[in-house]
Amino acid sequence: MDESNTFFSDDTFAKELGIIVKTSSPGTATVALQVTDKHKNFHGTVHGGVLFSLADAAFSIACNSHGIPAVAINTSITFMKAVHQGTITAHAEEFSKNPKLGTYHVEITDENGDKIALFVGLAYRKSIRPQ
Amino acid sequence: MDESNTFFSDDTFAKELGIIVKTSSPGTATVALQVTDKHKNFHGTVHGGVLFSLADAAFSIACNSHGIPAVAINTSITFMKAVHQGTITAHAEEFSKNPKLGTYHVEITDENGDKIALFVGLAYRKSIRPQ
Amino acid sequence: MDESNTFFSDDTFAKELGIIVKTSSPGTATVALQVTDKHKNFHGTVHGGVLFSLADAAFSIACNSHGIPAVAINTSITFMKAVHQGTITAHAEEFSKNPKLGTYHVEITDENGDKIALFVGLAYRKSIRPQ
Amino acid sequence: MDESNTFFSDDTFAKELGIIVKTSSPGTATVALQVTDKHKNFHGTVHGGVLFSLADAAFSIACNSHGIPAVAINTSITFMKAVHQGTITAHAEEFSKNPKLGTYHVEITDENGDKIALFVGLAYRKSIRPQ
Repeated sequence: MDESNTFFSDDTFAKELGIIVKTSSPGTATVALQVTDKHKNFHGTVHGGVLFSLADAAFSIACNSHGIPAVAINTSITFMKAVHQGTITAHAEEFSKNPKLGTYHVEITDENGDKIALFVGLAYRKSIRPQ
Repeated sequence: MDESNTFFSDDTFAKELGIIVKTSSPGTATVALQVTDKHKNFHGTVHGGVLFSLADAAFSIACNSHGIPAVAINTSITFMKAVHQGTITAHAEEFSKNPKLGTYHVEITDENGDKIALFVGLAYRKSIRPQ
Repeated sequence: MDESNTFFSDDTFAKELGIIVKTSSPGTATVALQVTDKHKNFHGTVHGGVLFSLADAAFSIACNSHGIPAVAINTSITFMKAVHQGTITAHAEEFSKNPKLGTYHVEITDENGDKIALFVGLAYRKSIRPQ
Repeated sequence: MDESNTFFSDDTFAKELGIIVKTSSPGTATVALQVTDKHKNFHGTVHGGVLFSLADAAFSIACNSHGIPAVAINTSITFMKAVHQGTITAHAEEFSKNPKLGTYHVEITDENGDKIALFVGLAYRKSIRPQ
């Protein structure tokens, strides 16, 4: 079990949502979720908060994959299609990083491969201070 | 019970999170949530997805408050402080609107009034087509 | 002449655009620009890049107002109304700051006070390293 | 001369900046700019407003490439590296579109291929009303 799964297994909220890690490697991660009624909003479609959380999970695993704790400081998400059912997948790729900041591109697709949302996340890495 | 609460009462995901509507009026809304362990991430702080969902709930109520169904098309959120406990509140204000698009400014604060996150949401109003 | 004006006077691009500083104080700034033909796009309205640059100028002065050099790391701008002529003004307010990061809210208005754009900027402050 | 160049040739501000169109096809565009002193800010690096304008030019050409006038409604840009000199290039790709809205991903690189900024633009297409 890799480190990303270790920290992810302590993520109560992501577990509550049913998010599972499919793959992860330095700078990337793919996570998925099977849609159920509890994920829906009053329109009867998957809640924006669920889509955000799925993208954010992929982002968190990708940006924490270098062994230095990183936190999200800004994220932007554009929603292009509503989802009613099935499995939705978020794939994060590192776009760039320097010692303090990293930018991640996350794409959410439904089980037909249709694009559901585009998320961009900016992470800040806390310094490891010399002892 | 006003219309915003009516549609909000059908929002399964928001109810699951424990989000409650404090006030709403045309173009504005205030919602709140009592932090519990299920809202936390692996850092032991409130998950970004929970903060997003709280802001998004205030945004949804505010942008649907004019009687024309509106959907989120883009949102941006900046996180400035981690929250560990207590009640967190999101207040949405309409910044501008035209017949098709509306922009909303949402501020999340903790119970000390400290700023936790700033969210900006862009909503698209579907046309009411003549029958 | 205050420090924000000093650094601003070295900003070749902002000067080229005709941006002038109206007021500034710690954490805030107001700048303005008189629209001319050179600011326009192929729609005959003020170019998004000019509106961005005006907002960015207000943001830069506000985030550099504390004496520690700060750079923009992320900005988001929502455009709500096209402008054809007159004076446009951008007012920046500090929404929050900690030693490394600051978030600024910038509103652009035309000379009738109509809202033209909403900009949110995130700045990163470089550490002052001990010599 | 293709249509994107036709409308682009009427873009006074982009011409003032020295932006040139390298290639364009339905849904994509590549534009470039040779850095000169007039593009700089008080840090002596290329101004964020210039980088934004370059990305916005690529975005505008790409989103107007389908023959239906489109306007930017929201853009987000993350800056990862300062540029001092040379040629900078912005390449826009259509991420998704429906009849009203389109999302575009724009990457700015310097002449070494280093990533300078990531821009995401959301465009709104005005309806062609039946006469």
